[in-house]
Amino acid sequence: MSKVTPDIRLAADLFDQLSLRTRKGQGIVRDTYGAGEQAAHDLMRATAESMALEISVDAIGNLTMTLPGRDRAAPRIIIGSHLDSVPQGGNFDGAAGVIAGLSAVSGLQAAGVMPAVDVSVMAIRGEESSWFDVSYLGSGGAFGLLDPACLQVTRSDTGQTLEAALLACGFDAGAIREGRRLLDPAQIGAYVEVHIEQGPTLVELGLPAAVVTAVRGCQRFRNARCLGRYGHSGTVSRLHRHDAVAATVAFLHHMESVWLCHEQAGDDLVFTAGEFYTDRLLHAPSKIAGETRFVVDIRSTSDATMREVAAEARAAAARIGDEYRVRFELGPTSDSPTAMMDAWLRTRLLRGLAEPFEMPSGAGHDAATFAKVGVPTAMLFVRNENGSHNPDESMDIDDFSVATQALIQLLLEFPS
Amino acid sequence: MSKVTPDIRLAADLFDQLSLRTRKGQGIVRDTYGAGEQAAHDLMRATAESMALEISVDAIGNLTMTLPGRDRAAPRIIIGSHLDSVPQGGNFDGAAGVIAGLSAVSGLQAAGVMPAVDVSVMAIRGEESSWFDVSYLGSGGAFGLLDPACLQVTRSDTGQTLEAALLACGFDAGAIREGRRLLDPAQIGAYVEVHIEQGPTLVELGLPAAVVTAVRGCQRFRNARCLGRYGHSGTVSRLHRHDAVAATVAFLHHMESVWLCHEQAGDDLVFTAGEFYTDRLLHAPSKIAGETRFVVDIRSTSDATMREVAAEARAAAARIGDEYRVRFELGPTSDSPTAMMDAWLRTRLLRGLAEPFEMPSGAGHDAATFAKVGVPTAMLFVRNENGSHNPDESMDIDDFSVATQALIQLLLEFPS
Repeated sequence: MSKVTPDIRLAADLFDQLSLRTRKGQGIVRDTYGAGEQAAHDLMRATAESMALEISVDAIGNLTMTLPGRDRAAPRIIIGSHLDSVPQGGNFDGAAGVIAGLSAVSGLQAAGVMPAVDVSVMAIRGEESSWFDVSYLGSGGAFGLLDPACLQVTRSDTGQTLEAALLACGFDAGAIREGRRLLDPAQIGAYVEVHIEQGPTLVELGLPAAVVTAVRGCQRFRNARCLGRYGHSGTVSRLHRHDAVAATVAFLHHMESVWLCHEQAGDDLVFTAGEFYTDRLLHAPSKIAGETRFVVDIRSTSDATMREVAAEARAAAARIGDEYRVRFELGPTSDSPTAMMDAWLRTRLLRGLAEPFEMPSGAGHDAATFAKVGVPTAMLFVRNENGSHNPDESMDIDDFSVATQALIQLLLEFPS
Repeated sequence: MSKVTPDIRLAADLFDQLSLRTRKGQGIVRDTYGAGEQAAHDLMRATAESMALEISVDAIGNLTMTLPGRDRAAPRIIIGSHLDSVPQGGNFDGAAGVIAGLSAVSGLQAAGVMPAVDVSVMAIRGEESSWFDVSYLGSGGAFGLLDPACLQVTRSDTGQTLEAALLACGFDAGAIREGRRLLDPAQIGAYVEVHIEQGPTLVELGLPAAVVTAVRGCQRFRNARCLGRYGHSGTVSRLHRHDAVAATVAFLHHMESVWLCHEQAGDDLVFTAGEFYTDRLLHAPSKIAGETRFVVDIRSTSDATMREVAAEARAAAARIGDEYRVRFELGPTSDSPTAMMDAWLRTRLLRGLAEPFEMPSGAGHDAATFAKVGVPTAMLFVRNENGSHNPDESMDIDDFSVATQALIQLLLEFPS
């Protein structure tokens, strides 16, 4: 058997076509359940048809393109990712995973290799929550996990409800309303997602690809506030102040020291306050601020670490609130748990890399949904410059090839 | 000679009349060069006429009401303050100083005492910069200190220019345009201003009144920014971040420790960041913030302390900017220097208090303008609950009487 290699000509052509069809101005616009996402689905479907793959589209529009395996009754492998993008995004976030699947399958076909089990390439709908503020719309919907109330969520730019958008595309909102399961986890032997790295780690280390250890969970204080009292900046001495900015600064500074402690202990953790603002109708240069609003975002590959940091945030808010004569209202956290990647799959994928390297995923991915329902799940990251969610995403096709080659090695060894 | 006491019945009546004529809804509205301020001027002028005081109005509307002294050629004493208020302000900020003057003069008249020099009560225009964003409009204009460009400043609610407002009132914008001096500092022996305290110090200490040591100067970084780089909150590790919020938090936390050091050294200082905000169009819960904007307000009765703290702010911004891989742009400071109160006047006023107490003024006052041009200047604070610039200002007439009695003692001893 000759060596199986990814079909890189196909991949390069698909990336070019995608860019041509879905670029608007500087950036890429593949709007969830809109014209941009549909153009990407149409392109992949036409490609799969020309490859003679079996094609199906589920009730909410997820597209599955299957190369039959030797044992058609055995749980199959899904290679998937999403095709939508953020507004003015880049060409690679999401699409790289679907194209990796098609490129690997095309490689198997070219080598005349029939895999042991069915290999399905899945183009998942609506992963980016920037259009409809719903997490993992396509993959969550496939497993019947969505809250039916999400059908009334409106699209951020047009105001169209998700329900109306599904109907306009000819899909079945009833599947979400009834929580219908469109995919059976027991029938999936593995889910593998190739995705560009969204941080600078691989660029800094000079590595083309990495295997993901876990998708970091997130505990987020989405609507935290600090309530003090407005006062004159010149006339109120320090110990008479109820300064919401000073208290929030003390709180966030303390939490940075908590982060450093966890880092020193070797714990995986990132801590971010990405929004912080005084009230623009009430603040003034000569006023002590009576209120701040801010967001605290805690992520880790360890649920225990996140719980510990969130608990310390609550304790610190109470303590610092007393000290500064203000009241913190952190509110509830919105949580998404850590998704551990499958050890067996990780080991196989690492073997496929000339320079084996593992790292956590800081961003969420559809892979987390598959892991959540018990499917053995793995991810490969491809080196990418300039971060993601912007027009400057930059992935080298050679790096993409390295990751897709590792994916092919897994397909050839599965199940073993 | 019987003891001279303030005319408290007159004062109480004037406060009531003012409240009746200038309250709109919950709060007081005495708009600069508008109907509210004019109503207050009309009331004071009518009162002064009934007291047979000499009345004059200068080119920009400052009203002077004079009780002749024995030596009419000698430099006179001015007892002054402003009659305008912020929108939805309280009844006492400003007006208390003018009413204290009339109440003291009425007390002198009732006791048949002719003062050694002329005593003028001055109702100053436009001290609150909330209508026209110009500092010390009335007192600065009286000394020809205003930048003529201020005539084009527009009123915050109606958009009317200051020039148009002056014309509509029948005043002479030319005085400001030409920088004409309407008052000669050499002809003023002393300026004394009674004002409600705008902080909680006297309430906390249980004292009715205090003598002011100095009007705190202010050095303000009005348009400070921190420029980092937006990034994904989950995917970028700590040492790869350019987090503008984290850096600004570290900067402000450091400056709080600088404040504590100065406090321990016995220096007068207040430090405030009253505005702090990420960009609401670009920030997001899952993004590292790439920019903050904030204001730093440094006040002290010592110009040297302010300079030292501002210099440390610049040094810390450079240091912490490097540490966090961001760039701080603090920009220039807008400065108003400290105005020291006259030692001789302070001593005389302190003697007039049963419980002598001195404190700085954190807020600016017309007194600072008089001190700036070399007039011996003093201020008395009256205890006031709930701060100022709001409808809940609360001054007890007995406390007002204590301060006005001290003012009378000064008038009786001046010059000696």
